[in-house]
Amino acid sequence: MSKNQVKSKVVAGGITAAQGFRAHAVQCGIKDPKKLRLDLTLICSDRPTVAAGTFTTNKMKAAPVLLSEKRVRNVDVRAILANSGNANACTGVDGLQDAKAMTETAAAELKLRASQVLVCSTGIIGLRMPMDRLLPHIPSLVAGLVDGPDANDQASRAIMTSDTKPKSIAVEIPMGGKVVKIGGIAKGAGMINPNMATMLCFITTDVAISRADLQKATKAAVEQSFNRITIDGDMSTNDTVLVLANGASGVKPITPSSSHWKAFCRGLNRVMLELAKMIVRDGERVTRFVQIDVRGARSATDARKVAEAVANSLLVKCSFHGGDPNWGRVLHAVGYSGAHVVESQTDVYFGGLVAARSGLVAPTPIEKLREVAAQKEFTLTIELNLGKQEYTVYTSDISKEYVDFNTDEYAVPGSVPKKS
Amino acid sequence: MSKNQVKSKVVAGGITAAQGFRAHAVQCGIKDPKKLRLDLTLICSDRPTVAAGTFTTNKMKAAPVLLSEKRVRNVDVRAILANSGNANACTGVDGLQDAKAMTETAAAELKLRASQVLVCSTGIIGLRMPMDRLLPHIPSLVAGLVDGPDANDQASRAIMTSDTKPKSIAVEIPMGGKVVKIGGIAKGAGMINPNMATMLCFITTDVAISRADLQKATKAAVEQSFNRITIDGDMSTNDTVLVLANGASGVKPITPSSSHWKAFCRGLNRVMLELAKMIVRDGERVTRFVQIDVRGARSATDARKVAEAVANSLLVKCSFHGGDPNWGRVLHAVGYSGAHVVESQTDVYFGGLVAARSGLVAPTPIEKLREVAAQKEFTLTIELNLGKQEYTVYTSDISKEYVDFNTDEYAVPGSVPKKS
Repeated sequence: MSKNQVKSKVVAGGITAAQGFRAHAVQCGIKDPKKLRLDLTLICSDRPTVAAGTFTTNKMKAAPVLLSEKRVRNVDVRAILANSGNANACTGVDGLQDAKAMTETAAAELKLRASQVLVCSTGIIGLRMPMDRLLPHIPSLVAGLVDGPDANDQASRAIMTSDTKPKSIAVEIPMGGKVVKIGGIAKGAGMINPNMATMLCFITTDVAISRADLQKATKAAVEQSFNRITIDGDMSTNDTVLVLANGASGVKPITPSSSHWKAFCRGLNRVMLELAKMIVRDGERVTRFVQIDVRGARSATDARKVAEAVANSLLVKCSFHGGDPNWGRVLHAVGYSGAHVVESQTDVYFGGLVAARSGLVAPTPIEKLREVAAQKEFTLTIELNLGKQEYTVYTSDISKEYVDFNTDEYAVPGSVPKKS
Repeated sequence: MSKNQVKSKVVAGGITAAQGFRAHAVQCGIKDPKKLRLDLTLICSDRPTVAAGTFTTNKMKAAPVLLSEKRVRNVDVRAILANSGNANACTGVDGLQDAKAMTETAAAELKLRASQVLVCSTGIIGLRMPMDRLLPHIPSLVAGLVDGPDANDQASRAIMTSDTKPKSIAVEIPMGGKVVKIGGIAKGAGMINPNMATMLCFITTDVAISRADLQKATKAAVEQSFNRITIDGDMSTNDTVLVLANGASGVKPITPSSSHWKAFCRGLNRVMLELAKMIVRDGERVTRFVQIDVRGARSATDARKVAEAVANSLLVKCSFHGGDPNWGRVLHAVGYSGAHVVESQTDVYFGGLVAARSGLVAPTPIEKLREVAAQKEFTLTIELNLGKQEYTVYTSDISKEYVDFNTDEYAVPGSVPKKS
């Protein structure tokens, strides 16, 4: 087995799997002081790190995004402070001040500078952060920092909003006689399209790497994972992916020309892709997970347009929900995708069975197609037969429970406006 | 009152209001021979017409669209043949042959050439048209042609699919001592976004006009009406607007430099806009009708992007359904619209009451905003405060019944494949 084919192995510990990282979470009652749940977490490295990040492209950026986007470029970032229950979005200059104050308080307890602490928030939009309930818990949050699976479990739960389960994974990669670990936690929910809800992902690794190279690897991995469950850069006000690397594994620093570079990137891709898939599977009231493979496109852009048009068609999603192999709705979305397509050359497959060939109904018995579409997870393949470009997205159905949930669940922003 | 301010008056008769037009509809059992309903209609002028049309931009065009798109340019178009129950889409060369055969049979009965007959279809995708059930009814369809409100009612019902009510309107405009009438019928349903379901609209008028000028007026009116309930050219495989003008009113031919041009265009706009609004109000399981006004954009494109992003946000639509004045979700969609926007300059109004000012919660009591959002129809205004450009779209909520309906109702295309 060549070094380039070294496979990562899943290990325990999630966000604290990598050496030198600890985490803890506490209950502040951020959303509702009468319903306490883990809603504030801190992830911390015991030595200097380099940090990388990708942030929402939404023009309405939440205060913590504005702050962390700047600070991620700093040298010696040490910690990520994250809360659920309040997004600190649409809160203006006051919100920015609150985000800074959160990091100042954490930094003081950690004996760090505020500029070494990144901050993320997810939850209700348009309400001031309840600083009076949050800040007093930071000393115990810092005091409880620890590594191990329990700390990972707490951290991953503290960032959940309408997620039904915590999401984390860690892998290890042998590297020149030593072992590098990469671990992460994420939260998603909303529908699988991040324009619908905040997506947060935090990753820690003990590899040694430069900030520029870590940013490069992070950007590429996000493109292959979280951007495969989104459309056209539509992102929420708070979406953030952060990666911290502290070199604690003792390996020699890696660069794109190192023999271990590809193995590291594959490991990082794997962690992000698994977390991205967990987000789709745990989408609000989702009952089906569908991988959409587009093949034979004339250009990569065309392949992506087709995949995203199909993945985001409400009628296609309704078909998924009903377990119907409705290739007509698929072709319909292919047709309005904006990509170069030719009806009489387009084939559609459900789980490898041809449903439409050359734009016309294929002879596969409908019962066989229904068996595929009735599965909880299946692959829909669209073969355009026009070129060699491909693209894959991961999507879900939409259920009436989704509509119910989003009609009733959320508070109107500012319905309890606070003037501090 | 100047001629340019002549107001059209609503009159009876719909598609047969204009002189020289007759209509009729019959039951063929196109979708299901055991459930007879009006599903084939013919609209016919007793003298030569000029025809104009706009057609779906979907690359998967249904057979009748391919045919009518060509024929609408012909001189002396006389009739429109339209059916519901089968879209004749994704049916390849056989489907094109079927569409032609439909017009040939109608032309023979009408003593016309097939090239003088346009054809439109709406309904299930991917199934061959049941010609054996359809063609035998064409002689009685032609024999029954008549004008008056009953004929209009029948024609408007025969093109319904999941529409819950027929849609028609006619107006008259005084013009130099004579009277010009413009009448139309439409079908929509699906959600308000025509990428979700076929939209058909047929309009007849007894004005005298050249084909080029009628096409110009038609294109402009579609832009102000049906394109205001759609996004980014996303259209179904069958969407079609057809306008026939036969000059039977006896007015002198109008041109863009005529004194009566504006009055005619306003009348045509009014007919199309009213039909477009009827389509939104009758969207599948729709409970609310919302006009979204975007103001103060730096460019017309920006205004449109913002309006369409907000109108098409699933979470915003869920808020509408719940009667929640959720300005946070509105700002969120404004932020990812791709338009130039500045959070701290953006205001959001529900029915004229300010919900957010400068990107922050406004002091309007939430109860007042809820009263607006609880209405069946209201206006949502987004003021960007960056320029002078404006755009308006008409949209609806989404209900869980919509999802239910689209999960269960439709047959999988080709599930009863026919090989003729």
